[in-house]
Amino acid sequence: MTKDQIVLTFIGGDKRQIEAMRMAAKEGFIVKAVGFEDISNDSITLYKYLHDECFICHALILPIPYKNKYGYINIPSDPQSITLEQVMKKVDSSTIVILGKADHDIKRQAEEKNIRIFDILEEETFAILNAIPTAEGAIQRAMEKTDITLHGANVLVLGYGRIGKCLARMLKGIGAKVTVEARKPEDLVWIYENGYNGVHLDDLDSVLGSQQVIFNTIPHLVLTRERLKKVDKEAVIIDLASAPGGTDFEAAKELGIRAYLELSLPGIVAPKTAGRIVYSVIKELIERSQKNLV
Amino acid sequence: MTKDQIVLTFIGGDKRQIEAMRMAAKEGFIVKAVGFEDISNDSITLYKYLHDECFICHALILPIPYKNKYGYINIPSDPQSITLEQVMKKVDSSTIVILGKADHDIKRQAEEKNIRIFDILEEETFAILNAIPTAEGAIQRAMEKTDITLHGANVLVLGYGRIGKCLARMLKGIGAKVTVEARKPEDLVWIYENGYNGVHLDDLDSVLGSQQVIFNTIPHLVLTRERLKKVDKEAVIIDLASAPGGTDFEAAKELGIRAYLELSLPGIVAPKTAGRIVYSVIKELIERSQKNLV
Amino acid sequence: MTKDQIVLTFIGGDKRQIEAMRMAAKEGFIVKAVGFEDISNDSITLYKYLHDECFICHALILPIPYKNKYGYINIPSDPQSITLEQVMKKVDSSTIVILGKADHDIKRQAEEKNIRIFDILEEETFAILNAIPTAEGAIQRAMEKTDITLHGANVLVLGYGRIGKCLARMLKGIGAKVTVEARKPEDLVWIYENGYNGVHLDDLDSVLGSQQVIFNTIPHLVLTRERLKKVDKEAVIIDLASAPGGTDFEAAKELGIRAYLELSLPGIVAPKTAGRIVYSVIKELIERSQKNLV
Amino acid sequence: MTKDQIVLTFIGGDKRQIEAMRMAAKEGFIVKAVGFEDISNDSITLYKYLHDECFICHALILPIPYKNKYGYINIPSDPQSITLEQVMKKVDSSTIVILGKADHDIKRQAEEKNIRIFDILEEETFAILNAIPTAEGAIQRAMEKTDITLHGANVLVLGYGRIGKCLARMLKGIGAKVTVEARKPEDLVWIYENGYNGVHLDDLDSVLGSQQVIFNTIPHLVLTRERLKKVDKEAVIIDLASAPGGTDFEAAKELGIRAYLELSLPGIVAPKTAGRIVYSVIKELIERSQKNLV
Repeated sequence: MTKDQIVLTFIGGDKRQIEAMRMAAKEGFIVKAVGFEDISNDSITLYKYLHDECFICHALILPIPYKNKYGYINIPSDPQSITLEQVMKKVDSSTIVILGKADHDIKRQAEEKNIRIFDILEEETFAILNAIPTAEGAIQRAMEKTDITLHGANVLVLGYGRIGKCLARMLKGIGAKVTVEARKPEDLVWIYENGYNGVHLDDLDSVLGSQQVIFNTIPHLVLTRERLKKVDKEAVIIDLASAPGGTDFEAAKELGIRAYLELSLPGIVAPKTAGRIVYSVIKELIERSQKNLV
Repeated sequence: MTKDQIVLTFIGGDKRQIEAMRMAAKEGFIVKAVGFEDISNDSITLYKYLHDECFICHALILPIPYKNKYGYINIPSDPQSITLEQVMKKVDSSTIVILGKADHDIKRQAEEKNIRIFDILEEETFAILNAIPTAEGAIQRAMEKTDITLHGANVLVLGYGRIGKCLARMLKGIGAKVTVEARKPEDLVWIYENGYNGVHLDDLDSVLGSQQVIFNTIPHLVLTRERLKKVDKEAVIIDLASAPGGTDFEAAKELGIRAYLELSLPGIVAPKTAGRIVYSVIKELIERSQKNLV
Repeated sequence: MTKDQIVLTFIGGDKRQIEAMRMAAKEGFIVKAVGFEDISNDSITLYKYLHDECFICHALILPIPYKNKYGYINIPSDPQSITLEQVMKKVDSSTIVILGKADHDIKRQAEEKNIRIFDILEEETFAILNAIPTAEGAIQRAMEKTDITLHGANVLVLGYGRIGKCLARMLKGIGAKVTVEARKPEDLVWIYENGYNGVHLDDLDSVLGSQQVIFNTIPHLVLTRERLKKVDKEAVIIDLASAPGGTDFEAAKELGIRAYLELSLPGIVAPKTAGRIVYSVIKELIERSQKNLV
Repeated sequence: MTKDQIVLTFIGGDKRQIEAMRMAAKEGFIVKAVGFEDISNDSITLYKYLHDECFICHALILPIPYKNKYGYINIPSDPQSITLEQVMKKVDSSTIVILGKADHDIKRQAEEKNIRIFDILEEETFAILNAIPTAEGAIQRAMEKTDITLHGANVLVLGYGRIGKCLARMLKGIGAKVTVEARKPEDLVWIYENGYNGVHLDDLDSVLGSQQVIFNTIPHLVLTRERLKKVDKEAVIIDLASAPGGTDFEAAKELGIRAYLELSLPGIVAPKTAGRIVYSVIKELIERSQKNLV
């Protein structure tokens, strides 16, 4: 099946979906869109509302996350217009549904209707690719908030997962003196192999005082009040963990340490790259689903 | 002669001189200051005006640049208060004078009075050290102005001097695909040795169209209207050359290409680091001048 | 329990065990050795044969691999002297046994006697640490066998496991143009993130012809006769996979392509480092086993 | 003038000239050769002796160095066959002569006959390019002579010229902990900028004891007996300076420190690359000489 026979329908989203649609159209997919204001792209068919035609597609792409706080499909320009039920009612079982942050609701409905759904946020490739703009965004924020260069500075990365790996590499590439904290012995060995200074969580307190920038990627409280007391007042904390982060922000404020929780950096600092990432994972999922077809 | 016998007097300046004074006091120098508002540092003696005591010093540090547009000593908080003559009248010939951007005026007055002056901007170590915050500032601006990650992007650095070298290294460290333009065969060989893609000025036009970010360090017009026509509309130009830069900004505007002239980045994005650089060069100059004393 | 109360007994081995014993003695362990000729180290008690005293220890370290081709404990200087039964007969159940390449034989005997055994080759930290001298050894061989510099050369790494990761990083650090082959999407994304040129196994044939050095880490036949026909005659193949490697060496010879199977590089090119790795993992295993004691 | 109208005559040389001739022929130059045994290349005209036809050429390339210890043209296969006079007698004044290590003899003869000569060893591009195989060769030797990995090792580079720069970069790329010695403040700043640990010559003694590998590039005695006494007995010294190097080899031997003088590394470890470097500089010189023609 060639690309231009494949039809993709996007319902709602942000700059990332706009960029993904633009790239899909450019690479030969047939693209339909609902829930976007003027996109200025002749290759994309824009629908004002959820037309039956929208459901004639191979893949349906919902936003990331797919629901907004109102419980509707996450369409920024019209946040209370389309419900999941409205969508699922018309989806054909041969269509794959791609979205972000699948909840019990959509999993149940998909199962009932025998529809395959793919949560982009659960795709390892997406998580790794997304670490890149997250790391660059963190570096941008650190540059903006500090009055020193990262080059030559003592910087600490808490956690050595996808974001930690990417961030440590970039920081070293700029010329910072990088320390990385981890708990698992394997992670500490990789940290050593890569030439960073490694520290086990148990020994974290001993390095805190000399750090000028601290990046947190650990999704639970690690920069406690006790630990923050050891941090230099001039230091800056960039917290990248999902809300509420891993820092006791109250304590940081009282102690006079600047600490920032930076969420959704990809879409904010590099929306075009973030869109390309979404697009490349969509392509991968379509390929994968086609290979599984009898 | 130990540090705490050495007296430094700072007349005017910006955040960089404030950081330099702070470090000097911390490292044991006796520091006097004129032309600064409250500095909150007990180790620094703040004078409200140009007191005779100020001239009892081993080194007198003027701002960088030392004169402002009014022709007075460059004191931001009081820009028309102190003239060069007032200063030079009282300077002892054993005192060295350190400043930025020495002009005919101060060179003549210094010669008449047999006073040694040192232009920090002429010091090679200063120029190299200053390239670091300049390069980081350029990267920060590029991250701010673009909606893509530098990682994976085609970036072009025009010129392979101090800033070009530092910038190319950092960009490669972040993961950009770096092309560097130069004219001299030796530079092109070093560019090859460092693993960047090299292009001679004569072949520049052929690579322009594929670049997503262009950093200019060449101090004369190189991004002409003709060349700008070849540049991708989505590309961003960060011009780091001294005013007026090396870009035809008028043409860029007409062509719809975003181009930014970024001057004095060190003092803006990393004033503390910039101050430490000024301080380290001051120390070096004092050491050098003391070695020359009979 | 402090270090100097911990007794380690080493039975046989090579330069790696000698270095490990030397480091253990230096760091305060009590070290006993059997099956080594003169070691010239006063802190190590050398036994001529398997004395009962040898078994008074906290950990017993056998060689890596522990058995030789004769089925005896792998003692190079006396290869048919000590059997596994002789050892296991006297081992106390509180002693942990550390060795390399545990087979059915030792697992059965250990289970019968309720003795804890640890196969160093199964430890993730060991495998990662060992990748470093393996990668450097591969680079050393490549430098020795080629008449070009790796800098500027097109080099291909087959496989992106521990050795592939380390090797790719070092090759890029030297200045080679690195392509890495992998099959898993996650690996290809990490390859992209790290700035190498990535190629899926399915597309491998298309890049073979331009490579000047090919490093294989895949433990099964991948450089088939068909693929070797595409490889440049001047290219050199360094095969790092366990015997018999991943190259059709017969075909390579017929085609006139130099291909080398490089086994056990750590112990050959960097025996001291290899010994330190063995030692650090021994320490880790002792710590781990002590934490598990009731 | 197109390439295939340009005639190059090579008189003597080693593997480097053979590779240079091969590349020249491949890129369309007309190539004549004297003083080489069978080259197996149909595009190269091989002469058994110095035929008049050999002098019908645009450029004459002599060996590097051009003279051997007998005072004859440096032809390894026939070292006492051709004198400089025999060559210069027939050279036309429109021919440029390219060679290595021009001495008073050839400079005088060239001046008398109004012939332009170019000493390749004096070309900056050649020196920079040659630093690459020299640095890689040094790393290869260090790997061969030590029983540790360079990764994680404390290595010291004496001197920050072309070889020092290239070597430090590669060593850091492999994962060594690099210290670089220099005297000039500018060099020390660049060393800092590049992320190496810098040490001024005056403070060299303080770091010697902790180094595991020492690379010398300084062309005069720096590793004196006094300094060698501070060096660790297990350390290895790789001396890259021109004969007699910068190490007191006698003292090293007495002190039991392994020290190696590695000369002419490019031609030994990477003759093909060395040949390509010679070739690229020959091309550059021909282009340059043609631009100067009236």
